[in-house]
Amino acid sequence: MIDNHLHHGNQLQLDSRRITWRRVIDLNDRALRETMVGLGGAANSFPREDGFEIVAASEVMAILCLADSLADLKRRLGNIIIGETRARRPVHARELGAHGAMAVLLRDALAPNLVQTLEHTPALLHGGPFGNIAHGCNSVIATRAAHKLGDYVVTEAGFGADLGAEKFVNIKCRKAGLRPACAVLVATVRALKYHGGVDVKALEREDLAALEQGCANLDRHLANIRDHYGLPCVIAINRFAHDTPAELEQLARRMAHHGAPVVVTEQFARGGAGAEELARTVVELARPGGSELRFVYEDATPLWQKMKAIATKIYGASEITADTRVRSRIKQLEEQGYGHYPVCVAKTQYSFSTDALLRGAPSNHVVNIRDVRLAAGAEFVVMVCGEIMTMPGLPASPAAMTIDLDDQGRIIGLA
Amino acid sequence: MIDNHLHHGNQLQLDSRRITWRRVIDLNDRALRETMVGLGGAANSFPREDGFEIVAASEVMAILCLADSLADLKRRLGNIIIGETRARRPVHARELGAHGAMAVLLRDALAPNLVQTLEHTPALLHGGPFGNIAHGCNSVIATRAAHKLGDYVVTEAGFGADLGAEKFVNIKCRKAGLRPACAVLVATVRALKYHGGVDVKALEREDLAALEQGCANLDRHLANIRDHYGLPCVIAINRFAHDTPAELEQLARRMAHHGAPVVVTEQFARGGAGAEELARTVVELARPGGSELRFVYEDATPLWQKMKAIATKIYGASEITADTRVRSRIKQLEEQGYGHYPVCVAKTQYSFSTDALLRGAPSNHVVNIRDVRLAAGAEFVVMVCGEIMTMPGLPASPAAMTIDLDDQGRIIGLA
Amino acid sequence: MIDNHLHHGNQLQLDSRRITWRRVIDLNDRALRETMVGLGGAANSFPREDGFEIVAASEVMAILCLADSLADLKRRLGNIIIGETRARRPVHARELGAHGAMAVLLRDALAPNLVQTLEHTPALLHGGPFGNIAHGCNSVIATRAAHKLGDYVVTEAGFGADLGAEKFVNIKCRKAGLRPACAVLVATVRALKYHGGVDVKALEREDLAALEQGCANLDRHLANIRDHYGLPCVIAINRFAHDTPAELEQLARRMAHHGAPVVVTEQFARGGAGAEELARTVVELARPGGSELRFVYEDATPLWQKMKAIATKIYGASEITADTRVRSRIKQLEEQGYGHYPVCVAKTQYSFSTDALLRGAPSNHVVNIRDVRLAAGAEFVVMVCGEIMTMPGLPASPAAMTIDLDDQGRIIGLA
Amino acid sequence: MIDNHLHHGNQLQLDSRRITWRRVIDLNDRALRETMVGLGGAANSFPREDGFEIVAASEVMAILCLADSLADLKRRLGNIIIGETRARRPVHARELGAHGAMAVLLRDALAPNLVQTLEHTPALLHGGPFGNIAHGCNSVIATRAAHKLGDYVVTEAGFGADLGAEKFVNIKCRKAGLRPACAVLVATVRALKYHGGVDVKALEREDLAALEQGCANLDRHLANIRDHYGLPCVIAINRFAHDTPAELEQLARRMAHHGAPVVVTEQFARGGAGAEELARTVVELARPGGSELRFVYEDATPLWQKMKAIATKIYGASEITADTRVRSRIKQLEEQGYGHYPVCVAKTQYSFSTDALLRGAPSNHVVNIRDVRLAAGAEFVVMVCGEIMTMPGLPASPAAMTIDLDDQGRIIGLA
Repeated sequence: MIDNHLHHGNQLQLDSRRITWRRVIDLNDRALRETMVGLGGAANSFPREDGFEIVAASEVMAILCLADSLADLKRRLGNIIIGETRARRPVHARELGAHGAMAVLLRDALAPNLVQTLEHTPALLHGGPFGNIAHGCNSVIATRAAHKLGDYVVTEAGFGADLGAEKFVNIKCRKAGLRPACAVLVATVRALKYHGGVDVKALEREDLAALEQGCANLDRHLANIRDHYGLPCVIAINRFAHDTPAELEQLARRMAHHGAPVVVTEQFARGGAGAEELARTVVELARPGGSELRFVYEDATPLWQKMKAIATKIYGASEITADTRVRSRIKQLEEQGYGHYPVCVAKTQYSFSTDALLRGAPSNHVVNIRDVRLAAGAEFVVMVCGEIMTMPGLPASPAAMTIDLDDQGRIIGLA
Repeated sequence: MIDNHLHHGNQLQLDSRRITWRRVIDLNDRALRETMVGLGGAANSFPREDGFEIVAASEVMAILCLADSLADLKRRLGNIIIGETRARRPVHARELGAHGAMAVLLRDALAPNLVQTLEHTPALLHGGPFGNIAHGCNSVIATRAAHKLGDYVVTEAGFGADLGAEKFVNIKCRKAGLRPACAVLVATVRALKYHGGVDVKALEREDLAALEQGCANLDRHLANIRDHYGLPCVIAINRFAHDTPAELEQLARRMAHHGAPVVVTEQFARGGAGAEELARTVVELARPGGSELRFVYEDATPLWQKMKAIATKIYGASEITADTRVRSRIKQLEEQGYGHYPVCVAKTQYSFSTDALLRGAPSNHVVNIRDVRLAAGAEFVVMVCGEIMTMPGLPASPAAMTIDLDDQGRIIGLA
Repeated sequence: MIDNHLHHGNQLQLDSRRITWRRVIDLNDRALRETMVGLGGAANSFPREDGFEIVAASEVMAILCLADSLADLKRRLGNIIIGETRARRPVHARELGAHGAMAVLLRDALAPNLVQTLEHTPALLHGGPFGNIAHGCNSVIATRAAHKLGDYVVTEAGFGADLGAEKFVNIKCRKAGLRPACAVLVATVRALKYHGGVDVKALEREDLAALEQGCANLDRHLANIRDHYGLPCVIAINRFAHDTPAELEQLARRMAHHGAPVVVTEQFARGGAGAEELARTVVELARPGGSELRFVYEDATPLWQKMKAIATKIYGASEITADTRVRSRIKQLEEQGYGHYPVCVAKTQYSFSTDALLRGAPSNHVVNIRDVRLAAGAEFVVMVCGEIMTMPGLPASPAAMTIDLDDQGRIIGLA
Repeated sequence: MIDNHLHHGNQLQLDSRRITWRRVIDLNDRALRETMVGLGGAANSFPREDGFEIVAASEVMAILCLADSLADLKRRLGNIIIGETRARRPVHARELGAHGAMAVLLRDALAPNLVQTLEHTPALLHGGPFGNIAHGCNSVIATRAAHKLGDYVVTEAGFGADLGAEKFVNIKCRKAGLRPACAVLVATVRALKYHGGVDVKALEREDLAALEQGCANLDRHLANIRDHYGLPCVIAINRFAHDTPAELEQLARRMAHHGAPVVVTEQFARGGAGAEELARTVVELARPGGSELRFVYEDATPLWQKMKAIATKIYGASEITADTRVRSRIKQLEEQGYGHYPVCVAKTQYSFSTDALLRGAPSNHVVNIRDVRLAAGAEFVVMVCGEIMTMPGLPASPAAMTIDLDDQGRIIGLA
């Protein structure tokens, strides 16, 4: 509808170079990350630089997961900013008349999906905004439905206890009024050894010294959850086949002084039975009055201070930086009335810093904000601290090469 | 998979400038007709010129409609030519390992859809290759299934009795071994007046002189069907509200000398009842032995002669022309072993000539072949005689602007 | 200035997709034939499809060669059409305010260059419009200057006696009021054997039969010059090393019946001395009253008829064709007042037809007009009958690879 | 030659996405900053992203200015890195065979230009590498020639006493063995008031307080020159019409404690006479033994330390940062043997920091290195700390719009 509007006279005076809304296609197609569209002459709209994202990376997915009703969904879709005019006025999807039809397309999708686990228990699967560009949590509607349907609601926040938990608390809980009773901090011996400096290829070998050192990473996650979010926390050690008893024991001992329960779980290998102890611990911790949710910043905190609060409190940075253009943009967002939005961090999930290679629990690093993006429909401001990938690629031998029909017309090669 | 192959070392030595396979998306999006993909640097595959087509325009649709089994489907998909190497060797989808997965995606789609008409009678709806680039007929599998399920099978061929019937006979009947018992030639007073020279805006006014003149168009269609395809034929006048009794009467009188039945039908206004006389006439004509299907050319006829046969016999042209590049390409196709394929005409449906403005029954015109394209999976050679549109655009006020959710969450504005 | 105008508000309402004026750079750079410019965001003007031409292919070169004064030069530059508005109004260079500065840049270039031949005689070298897109003749100013300075003026018309002579007569002579006294028709035994069917690689072998057959080509050129342009003509056989005495003798004998002098010339090998007989013959033919220049068409002839006249009279075609778009464009040019312009043919120089492989003197072929282009500054209408190359490419081993500085800083490798 | 090489088989295995050498054209054409070339199919080389720079921004200009002989010029041209292979091997201009022809084109350009000033004194004008991407100094050959021709050589370093002087000392003097006798630090009352916080529009008003405050900027430049480069220095106050006597007097008084001469100059208004006192002061300072050139870093200092030395010593930064990609690239340059090259800073000339809006003498700021680029022909490593413009644009009303020919053919409107 955007290019069609440009083609048919462009009454909104959209600047074709300042269109920020990208096409979406749900394929892993790296060649569509950056494209030119509208080539081939006057019958084909106007040439402009564009790109495709997958569905999970679209602001529409974030909106679907934050909307609390059909009316709210439509309102938010209408608020999407698709670009700017030559005079730099933001233009909204509603000005194109696109939001009604978008809401129609999403009407059924707004209802949560009830699915069955391999052990025949029910689960709600609903929504999947990319943790690298959006808030990484399932839909508010599904979580609320679960609250009405079950005794305990377990949900996941994508991309680590720093990115995931921070956005779960400061965006989803804040906006949906959720008050979690406790947090499960999942750790693996593998990952902690990696944070202790072990090479990726050597992670299957026992290495108690590296494990010891990597625990600094876990320490900080635990502190974030308890001190900054105000939640009781259990550490769940997700056991892998190569973990040695000595490693598991040392990890439990190393974390003991925090006074948080440490539980080894084996749900991957043994199903629900493997997580029973964890479940009992959660029930124990999640007693009424046991948590007092805290936010890292208040709505009224200015955007720059919000960003600084996340970087310094959660990531251990000493300061944040940004070039003139980015700082001007942040200032402009305040002036345009978006200062009360929460901040959605987009950075590497491999480090507390913005440097994926800096492991453990780095401190006093500088977080450079490369860009900020307004998600006016999702109602947050994205703080971009690295390269963000919103369209995956295929590997050298994609699965499609082995998927086939056999002579009887049966599908093979899906594994 | 093509761009992924280019990205990961290009073992097939594909020439990125000679990739002929285009992406497909089922939206009316003119800005995707001609694109550049793979921009943005070395992580995003290689820059190249590309474009998108809608599903109906893809060779995959033509293949689905011509395949007679899952195995044939997969074989044809594997035969698709996606481009050429630098040494100009054609490269097939099977060389990418793509055809198995493509067949898996289409497995269920290969089964015909049984739907219900507004009068609760069954109908098979299956496949829709674009008449402007492909053969415009529904699937062979559906037609064959219908043969086993009903007493009479009625099917439609898209884009006029010249484009549609010619391709139905010379491609679909030839390849699927179908032997039609009779043909229904649909005509409208409106269209014949247009062919008689009336301006589009004046078609609702009675104009017996123009109608008389426009019948030359209908004469030729009738002659084509009876003389060139060997089929008995009934002329069905599809009555419109503005047709006057005098026009209908004159039309019937004007065609009488041919000895073919002329029936006025009103199925649009009155449903099945409006076509009862037509049905009875068809039953009458479709008696065993009443038809003797003929082809316009034989398999063994060289491609150039096939093209000439269609142009001169069906379209009334005096000759065909093509520039050196096109003639070389035709010669090359012969040498590569594709000379026995049928020819699929891609030209305007508004005229027997290649000039959309030349109405009636033009004779002795020249048909210039601008391009030829090999559909190695669909197994025909496309003879391109004009601009071919394989991706529609939206109007200035697309329907999406009126589609909406009302306050109760009901969809409105779909009409 | 065009992209700058688009960038700074586009007051002229130029449609960025309908800009027809291309950039010019005097390098052989095939990668610049088709480009996208204005990429990279809002600071860099607007993205659009563009291309580069070499200087000789630019309308500016044609203008320089047809202008008869500085004032006429500036007027013509201002008349250049650079593109269209969205409402399809043509926009001129003068509307951009570009023509004054263009005229300043060309002020000194408008004066003819006097150079010295290897035999120390003077010659004027001035202007070189590409024969494949423009009229292929040197400047009017130089030819007029030569008339005032010498007893006999010898000039050349590029690209064969069909393309070159036709455009020299119907464009340059018509517009500049020149009245040639006689024509020299240059032929080679090589080329005539080629037109007689000999393979390019076998041209150095004596082949009297092919030569005999190829003379049909020379017959037609001679007839064109004498009958259609009204000029007395001498045939100059440009002798090559491999020509045999038998071939030269046969060629002279074969052409004798026309009554036109046939002279063997060796100016390439022997300099001026090798062309003395030719010169004497020209002096003989060029006597006052010996010629009566005729045009192939009159100014008032409609454009389509002009095109048909050239195609049928000079090229031996039976008719001309064009698709609807091209015919509409021709009609539009008439309506816009350009109908009185001469026609400048752009076609292959290898054949009287539009098919480069059709040798000899083909008759009754069809000339298909692919496109027409208005050169409103040069004041002619280009009739495009094939692929036109306005930017050459480099060979696999360009001369630059051998050009070098030696140890003493001397330039080597220029040969 | 690069695109030609890609077109003709690409024997060097160049990766078309990793070509770093850009085309050059000496026009102010913002639409050429970022382009796609090689479009339009297989005859036109391969599509790739490219851009144009002006001559001053090309590495060729930096090479011309640093070469000390024709042989050195050719060697450096051959060392230019034009891109990388798919295996990431750098490819040099010499591998294309381009350097010989490039040296031929530049042969005459390597000789310095002797020009005449308005006062009829001689001056050498030779070379102009952009200070924003290169070292901003005239040619080594011209400076050396001047040394042989005159008693005193005065040269200029572009873009401020931080960017200009630092690169003059650490690149040009180091490489050419130059040993300056003294430095002239040019200041204006205007600029110092601006650094003292005055709005650009208010700079013509007397403002002693702002002047006082802005002198911190001048203090640091003076300290840099004397302490870090080891040069005696005179402060030349370039007088503007709006400067008040009180301002000039205060500026002199404010700087007095440094013990460096402060001279008001009026060469713009009064020509050489206006700079006589400055000249006498320079002669005084430039006595033998008065200077002892020091470098900010040694050749053997690693690149990262060189960058840090410049940022902390000259710009007053507390530290430098760079993301993983940039740090890896710096490490790679060390490994490839380029670690001994000097560093060429590319940053804003408006501030000691990388933030153009941070005036005065900011301290303890962070210098973020966005990119590093190897100039293997010029033999330095560019440290990019901001947006670099290598192709200017035209203003809304370019000068071309007023340049014209009058009726007598005279050029007007050049003023």
